[in-house]
Amino acid sequence: MVPRYSRPAMTAIWSPETRFGIWFEIEAHATQKLGELGVVPESAAKALWDWWATNPTIDVAAIDAIEAVTKHDVIAFLTWVAENVGDEARFMHQGMTSSDVLDTCLAVQLTRAADILLEDLDQLLAVLKRRAYEHKLTPTIGRSHGIHAEPVTFGLKLAEAYAEFSRCKTRLIAARADIATCAISGAVGTFANIDPRVEQHVADKLGLTVEPVSTQVIPRDRHAMFFATLGVIASSIERLAVEVRHLQRTEVLEAEEYFSPGQKGSSAMPHKRNPVLTENLTGLARMVRAAVIPAMENVALWHERDISHSSVERYIGPDATITLDFALARLTGVIDKLLVYPERMQKNLDRMGGLVHSQRVLLALTQAGVSREDSYRLVQRNAMKVWESDGELSLLELLKADDEVTAALSPQQIEEKFDLDYHFKAVDTIFERVFAD
Amino acid sequence: MVPRYSRPAMTAIWSPETRFGIWFEIEAHATQKLGELGVVPESAAKALWDWWATNPTIDVAAIDAIEAVTKHDVIAFLTWVAENVGDEARFMHQGMTSSDVLDTCLAVQLTRAADILLEDLDQLLAVLKRRAYEHKLTPTIGRSHGIHAEPVTFGLKLAEAYAEFSRCKTRLIAARADIATCAISGAVGTFANIDPRVEQHVADKLGLTVEPVSTQVIPRDRHAMFFATLGVIASSIERLAVEVRHLQRTEVLEAEEYFSPGQKGSSAMPHKRNPVLTENLTGLARMVRAAVIPAMENVALWHERDISHSSVERYIGPDATITLDFALARLTGVIDKLLVYPERMQKNLDRMGGLVHSQRVLLALTQAGVSREDSYRLVQRNAMKVWESDGELSLLELLKADDEVTAALSPQQIEEKFDLDYHFKAVDTIFERVFAD
Amino acid sequence: MVPRYSRPAMTAIWSPETRFGIWFEIEAHATQKLGELGVVPESAAKALWDWWATNPTIDVAAIDAIEAVTKHDVIAFLTWVAENVGDEARFMHQGMTSSDVLDTCLAVQLTRAADILLEDLDQLLAVLKRRAYEHKLTPTIGRSHGIHAEPVTFGLKLAEAYAEFSRCKTRLIAARADIATCAISGAVGTFANIDPRVEQHVADKLGLTVEPVSTQVIPRDRHAMFFATLGVIASSIERLAVEVRHLQRTEVLEAEEYFSPGQKGSSAMPHKRNPVLTENLTGLARMVRAAVIPAMENVALWHERDISHSSVERYIGPDATITLDFALARLTGVIDKLLVYPERMQKNLDRMGGLVHSQRVLLALTQAGVSREDSYRLVQRNAMKVWESDGELSLLELLKADDEVTAALSPQQIEEKFDLDYHFKAVDTIFERVFAD
Amino acid sequence: MVPRYSRPAMTAIWSPETRFGIWFEIEAHATQKLGELGVVPESAAKALWDWWATNPTIDVAAIDAIEAVTKHDVIAFLTWVAENVGDEARFMHQGMTSSDVLDTCLAVQLTRAADILLEDLDQLLAVLKRRAYEHKLTPTIGRSHGIHAEPVTFGLKLAEAYAEFSRCKTRLIAARADIATCAISGAVGTFANIDPRVEQHVADKLGLTVEPVSTQVIPRDRHAMFFATLGVIASSIERLAVEVRHLQRTEVLEAEEYFSPGQKGSSAMPHKRNPVLTENLTGLARMVRAAVIPAMENVALWHERDISHSSVERYIGPDATITLDFALARLTGVIDKLLVYPERMQKNLDRMGGLVHSQRVLLALTQAGVSREDSYRLVQRNAMKVWESDGELSLLELLKADDEVTAALSPQQIEEKFDLDYHFKAVDTIFERVFAD
Repeated sequence: MVPRYSRPAMTAIWSPETRFGIWFEIEAHATQKLGELGVVPESAAKALWDWWATNPTIDVAAIDAIEAVTKHDVIAFLTWVAENVGDEARFMHQGMTSSDVLDTCLAVQLTRAADILLEDLDQLLAVLKRRAYEHKLTPTIGRSHGIHAEPVTFGLKLAEAYAEFSRCKTRLIAARADIATCAISGAVGTFANIDPRVEQHVADKLGLTVEPVSTQVIPRDRHAMFFATLGVIASSIERLAVEVRHLQRTEVLEAEEYFSPGQKGSSAMPHKRNPVLTENLTGLARMVRAAVIPAMENVALWHERDISHSSVERYIGPDATITLDFALARLTGVIDKLLVYPERMQKNLDRMGGLVHSQRVLLALTQAGVSREDSYRLVQRNAMKVWESDGELSLLELLKADDEVTAALSPQQIEEKFDLDYHFKAVDTIFERVFAD
Repeated sequence: MVPRYSRPAMTAIWSPETRFGIWFEIEAHATQKLGELGVVPESAAKALWDWWATNPTIDVAAIDAIEAVTKHDVIAFLTWVAENVGDEARFMHQGMTSSDVLDTCLAVQLTRAADILLEDLDQLLAVLKRRAYEHKLTPTIGRSHGIHAEPVTFGLKLAEAYAEFSRCKTRLIAARADIATCAISGAVGTFANIDPRVEQHVADKLGLTVEPVSTQVIPRDRHAMFFATLGVIASSIERLAVEVRHLQRTEVLEAEEYFSPGQKGSSAMPHKRNPVLTENLTGLARMVRAAVIPAMENVALWHERDISHSSVERYIGPDATITLDFALARLTGVIDKLLVYPERMQKNLDRMGGLVHSQRVLLALTQAGVSREDSYRLVQRNAMKVWESDGELSLLELLKADDEVTAALSPQQIEEKFDLDYHFKAVDTIFERVFAD
Repeated sequence: MVPRYSRPAMTAIWSPETRFGIWFEIEAHATQKLGELGVVPESAAKALWDWWATNPTIDVAAIDAIEAVTKHDVIAFLTWVAENVGDEARFMHQGMTSSDVLDTCLAVQLTRAADILLEDLDQLLAVLKRRAYEHKLTPTIGRSHGIHAEPVTFGLKLAEAYAEFSRCKTRLIAARADIATCAISGAVGTFANIDPRVEQHVADKLGLTVEPVSTQVIPRDRHAMFFATLGVIASSIERLAVEVRHLQRTEVLEAEEYFSPGQKGSSAMPHKRNPVLTENLTGLARMVRAAVIPAMENVALWHERDISHSSVERYIGPDATITLDFALARLTGVIDKLLVYPERMQKNLDRMGGLVHSQRVLLALTQAGVSREDSYRLVQRNAMKVWESDGELSLLELLKADDEVTAALSPQQIEEKFDLDYHFKAVDTIFERVFAD
Repeated sequence: MVPRYSRPAMTAIWSPETRFGIWFEIEAHATQKLGELGVVPESAAKALWDWWATNPTIDVAAIDAIEAVTKHDVIAFLTWVAENVGDEARFMHQGMTSSDVLDTCLAVQLTRAADILLEDLDQLLAVLKRRAYEHKLTPTIGRSHGIHAEPVTFGLKLAEAYAEFSRCKTRLIAARADIATCAISGAVGTFANIDPRVEQHVADKLGLTVEPVSTQVIPRDRHAMFFATLGVIASSIERLAVEVRHLQRTEVLEAEEYFSPGQKGSSAMPHKRNPVLTENLTGLARMVRAAVIPAMENVALWHERDISHSSVERYIGPDATITLDFALARLTGVIDKLLVYPERMQKNLDRMGGLVHSQRVLLALTQAGVSREDSYRLVQRNAMKVWESDGELSLLELLKADDEVTAALSPQQIEEKFDLDYHFKAVDTIFERVFAD
C-alpha cells in the first residue's frame, strides 16, 4: 500500500482494527449459535456481545505481543479477548479452526472492498455518460494505428468507455459473489466438531453464502477469479488513460487533463502541462495486474491447505483493492474535469486534405462499376499525393482532376462523398444500444 | 501449439482452412443482407453461396502468395475469392473493414473453443462425481501444511474438486458470453457505410450478439476476461494435479496414476512409476496462465485500434485453448483411471499413534471445565511425545496415563474421542450441497 | 511457434531432427569416453560414429511410434538407434539418465539460439549506429509526457537505443553462459554409474562447461535467468517500436516505416500508411515476456526433479527464441529503412511558439538575481499564453513585452536564449560515451 | 510493504527521510561542482553543506504540504530546503531536471538495497556450506517425480542449493552494476544547461557510474533487469523452501523447521508442527516475482519519458527488496536451525525393499551381455513386485530367485550391486567443484 495512492474508506477495510473486529463478530455469532444449539452455555455469547457493546478499543499492540510468543495470530487474538471478557470466553472458537475465522474475515473484507469498487464504477459510469451525451455529436477524427482513419464523435469514444466499464461492473458483481462465502467447518472442513448450522448462521449474519465444501480453507480459485477480474478492470482503466494521454500530446491537443492553479508541470520547464494523472493511471494498472498471477499461483495449495497463500494475500488483498479504488476515483475525476477542445478536433480533422473521405469514394467507384482493385488503385494514387503533401493538397481537388475517376463519377458525385455528417447517422442507434437501461 | 499437447477437434478450429471458411461465411452473410437492403445486387450473395455449395478447397498457399504482395490478409483472401467466384464478388465487403471479418471470426473461433472446453468440463465433472461417490466414505487423513491433521474421506477430496470445476464451468459460460459478439460496423465503428441491420443479420446467423459499440475492433477487455478465466481453470487443474502427485509419493502412495503395460518410468531405473501425467498438467497450467497478462496488455489499444493485439492472439488463441482442452481431457483420464488404495490410506491414518484425534480431546477437556490454554497445553505435551516417537507411542495410552488429563476425563471418555466415524457424520450434508442440481 | 513470426535458422534449432541429432552426438561422445575409460568396448563408439558418418535420415515418425508404446522419448530414441546400428548400440547411455541427454541437448539448443540472437543484436546495433551518425545533428523536439520539452537530435534517440541494445547484448552473453552447461551425472546426479570424466569430455566436445552439481536435471534457475533476459530484450524492442509508432502518427509524422510498392494499409481506406511492423513488434514483445513467469515457476522442481518444467520448455524454448529472433530482425529492418523527415521535425519544433526555450529564460532570470519562484512564475505566465494560443503567439515576443522580465533581462539577452544549437553542444560527448569501444 | 515481512535496515532505505537525504546530497554535490565550474557562486554549496552539517530534521510533513499545492515533489523539496537554507539555495538544481534527482536517488537506493541483499546471500551461503559439510555423507534417498530414485546425501542437496545461490549472487552483482548509474543531464538528457562534469562529480561522490546517454530519465531496461534478477533469486528461495516442506511431511519427516517453545502449530490441533516458515517463503517468492512483469512494462516509456514507471516503482522498489531481504534472512534461519533426522532418512531409504539399486543390476546385466531391452525387462518385472508389496518384498531376494537373471549374474555379483557407499564415491569431487573458490 502506497499512501499517495490510497483513499481512507478502502484503506480502513484492511486495518488491524477492522480485521480484529470482523474476527470478533465471526466468533461471537458462532458462539451465539453454539449456545442456541446447546453446545455451549448461552451465557457465553451474551458475555461476548455485552463486552462488544461497550465499544472496546482493540489493542493491536497487545495482540501482536501475544502473537510474538504463540506465533499464531488467531490464538493471540482469542487470548486477548479472553483476557478482556473473562471466563465465558473459553467457549469461543469451539470446534472451529483458525482458517474459519481468517477466511470468512477475508470474504467480508473483499465483499466490502467490492462494494466500494462497485460504487466507484457507478460514479465513473455516471460521469462517462454525462460527458458522452455532452459530446455526442462533437466531430473528431477516428484513428487506427495512430493514423487518421475516418470521422467519429468524441461522444462515441466515451460511449465505448461506458460500455466497457459497464461490462467491468457485471464482471465485478460476479467476482464479488464468487468470494462472498463463509466457512465454519472445522479443522479440515468435515464439521467434525461443529454443526453446519453454525456456518449457516454466521453466513446469514455477515451477508455471505455458505461454502458448499471447504478444506481447511475456502478454495482459492474464488480469489484467483476475483483478482483476475480486478486485473481486467485495471486494463480498461489503462485503455482510457492512454486515450487521454494521446489526446493531450502537443501535436494533437484535443483534450487535456484539468490543470489546477498553482500546479507546476516541470521543475525545469515552466511551459509544461503534462497528462500526469493518466500516466499515473497507466502505472497503477500495471500494479493491479501484478496481483493476478500470484493469486492464480495460490490456487494449488497442498492437500487440505498450506499457508503459502497467506503472505500473498497480505500484500495483494490491500494493494490491489486500494490501488484500484484510487485509480477508479482518479479516472472519474479526470473524465469529469477533462478539458475538451472541439475546435482543435475540427482542425485536426481537416488537416489531412480530406483523406478521411477516401473510403466513400472507393465505394462510389465500385458501385459505379469500377472493379474493387481498380477503385482502390485510383483512390490510393491520389491519397498518397495528399499524404506526402502533409495535407497541403486536397483529395477532393485531385480526384476531380483525375480522368479515370471522373470517367466513373461526376464532380458533384465526388463532392457528395466529402460530407462529415454522413458519418454520424448511426450515433443515435449506438447510444441507444449503450445507454439503454 | 505443441502437437503432443493437442487434440484434433480443438486444433481444427485454428487451422487456416477453418479461419478462411468462417471469413467466407461472414462475408457471404453480410452480402446477403446487403442484397436484401438493396445496397448490392441480390445476385452477389447468390453467386457466393453457389460457389460455396460446391465445397471448394480453400487454397491456403494461393492466399498466402497474394498476402506476400499486399501485406494484408483480408484483402488477399477477398482477391482469391474474387478469382474463383468472378465478377459478382466485387460486392463483397461493401462498407466493411477487415476487422469486422477478423474479430467476428475470432469470436466464432473462441465460442467454438469454449464449447469444446465446456464439454471437457462436463466430462471431468461426470468422472469426478462418479469417483467421489465411489469413495464417499473411504477414510483418509486430511493434511494441512503437509502434516497429518484430522480424518477426511477420499470422496470429499473429489467433491471439492467437483465443486471447484463446477465454478469453473459457470465462469467459462460467462466468459464465453463475453466474447460471443459480432461487429460489422465499418472502418471506425460508425456504420458510416454499412447498415447496422447487416451486423444483426450476421450475428444471428453465427449465433453471436451484436457488439453495442465497437471501434475498428471489438474491445479487448472481452478477450482479456476470457483468457483470465482460462487461467483460473488451469490453476484449478494444477491444484488437483498436485494432489495426485502428492498422493503418489513413495512414502504416501495412497493413489497412483494408471500405469500402462509397456510403459517405462525411467530409462535408468526400471523400478520407477512416476506421476508424469499430473506433473505434465502442472506445467501445462503454467502455460495457460502465461496467456493472461499478454491478453490484459492487449486491452489498451491506441485510439480506435492498433494492431499490437493481433500477433499476441495468433499465439494465445490457439495455444491457450488447445492446451487447456488437452489438459482437461488428460485430467479426466487421470481421475477416471486413478488407482486408489484405501488400505494404504488407512495405514497412513494409523501411523501417527492417534494424533489425529487430538482436537477432540482438547474440546472435551474444555467442556469438562479446563481452561482452553490449559487444555491445549495438556494435549500438546502428550502429542509431542507421540510426534517425536514417529507414531510408535499411542496418544490414547499417554493421555490415559496423564494425571492432569484423567482428573478431568475418565479413560472411557477419552477413548470415545478416538472414533473415526465421528468425523464423517456431515459427509452426506456436504455431498448434498455439492451435487444437488 | 507461429510460422509468420519465424525465421528458418532459428526454427531449425527446434526441429525433431536437430534434437535427435544432438541426442546422438551426446550419446556417441559419452560412449567414446566410456570406451577410452575401458567401461565399454571401444568398438561401440566406433560403430555409432561409423553409422553417423553415413549421414542417416532421422526417422522421426519411427521414433514417435516407439514412444507411443514406451511413453518415454529417450528410450524410444535409443531403441531406434539400436535398430539401425545393431548390437554395439547396447553400450550407449551406460550409467546415464534421460535427463543427461535432454538437458544437455537443451543447453546446446539454447546456446545456438543465443548465438543467433547475438548476431541479430550485432546487426541491429550496426544499423542503429549508422543511422544515429546519419542523424547525429538532425534537430527534433524532445518530448516528456508526450508534450514538447526541449530540443534533442534524432541521432540521440538512436544513440539511446544503441546503448540500450548494447546492454542487452552484455546481458545475453551472461545469460548464454548461464545455460551453457553439460550434465552427464546419472540418475540423481551422483555419478554413481558414470565417471565424471565422461561429463567433461562431452562438455568439451559440445562447447559447454560441466554443471558443478546437478540433481537428475540441470537446475532451472539457469533457464529462468535466460528467459528473463529475453524478456528484458523484448521490452527494449517494445520501447523503440513504440517510439516509431509515435513518430508516425498523422499529427507528428517525423518518421515512417518503409511502405513497399503494392502494400495496402487498409482494405477500406486507401489513404492509410500504418506503422504495422512496429505495432506487431509491440505485440511480439508481450509474447516473449510471457515466457518469463513460467520459466521462473519451473525453478522449484520437487526434490531431485519433477517433470513439470518439460512441457513449459517445449513451448517457451522454441517460442521465445524464434519470436525474439524474428522481432530483432524485423526491428533491424524497420530502422534500416526508416523514412526520416527532418523538415517535419523542424516544423514540429517550431510549432509551439518557442516554448521549448522556456527553461533557458528561467535560468537566465535566476542568474540575473530574480528568485527561483518568481522566475518560474514570470516564465510560466507567458508560456501559458503561448500554450493556449496553440503556438500562434511567440514566447519570445511576449517575454520582450513583459516589464517584469525586461527589468532583469535585455531584449538581446532574451533573444540569445532562443538558440537551437545551444542544445546540441554535448552531442559529441554523448556519442563518444555511447559508441566508444 | 507488509510490516511482518520487513526488516529495519532495508525498510529504512525507503523512508521519506532517507529519500530526501539522498536528494539533498545529489543537489549539494551538483551545486558544489557548479561552483567549481564558476556557474554559480561557490558560497552556494557551502551554505547547503553548512546547513546539512547541523544534522537538520527533515520535515516530511512540511514538504508534503508544499507538494499538495505544487503537485510536484522535487519542487516541493527544493522550496522547503530554500526556506531553511535561505537565499543561497536558489542556485541549487541549476540546469537540472527533477528526474536527475529522482533517478539518481533511486539508483542509490537500489544499490544500497542490493548491498544488503548481497550480505544476505553471503550469510545464506555460509550457513548452507556449514550444513552441507555437516551432512556431506548423510545418506538419504534421492527422489525424482516424488518417487524414490537412488541414494544421494543430504549434504549434496545443500551443495546444490549453495551452487544455486552462488549463481544468484553473481547475477545480483551484475544487476547491481546495471542500476548503479547517475544521470545529471538536464531536461531531456542533452546537458543543454549543465556541464557533463557535474554528472561525473555526483556519480563519483555517490559511488555510481555516469549514464552514457539518458533521456529525461535513466533508461528502465536497467531496472527491469534488476527486478527480473530478484525474481530469479526468489524462485531459488522457493525451490529450497519447497524441499524443506516436502521433507517435513508427516510420512517423510527427514527434516523439520525448528519449533520454538511456546509455539502453537494449530489453534485446533495441538499435535501439529507445521513447516510454516517455508510455506511462507513460497508465498513471498510469488510476491517478489510479481514485480518482474510491471518492471518490464515500465521499459517502453514514451519518447524522452512518461511518468507511468513512477507509481510502479513506488510499490516494487520497496516491496521487492524488502520482501526478498526478509525472505533470504528467514531462509538462512530455517537452514541454520533445521532439525535433520539421519536415522529417518535411513529408514526411508530402506523402505522400498532395495528398489533404489535397480539401475546397478540393469547395468550389470547389460555388461554381462544381456541386451539393454531384456535387461530392463528382467529388472522391471521384479521391481514391480517389490513396488506392489509396498517394500515388503526384497528386490535382492527376488532377483536371486529369477532364473533369467541368475543365468547372467551370480548371486554374489547381484549382492554387490546393493552397496550404498557405491553411490557416494563422487561426493568429494562434487564438493570440490561447488565449494572451490
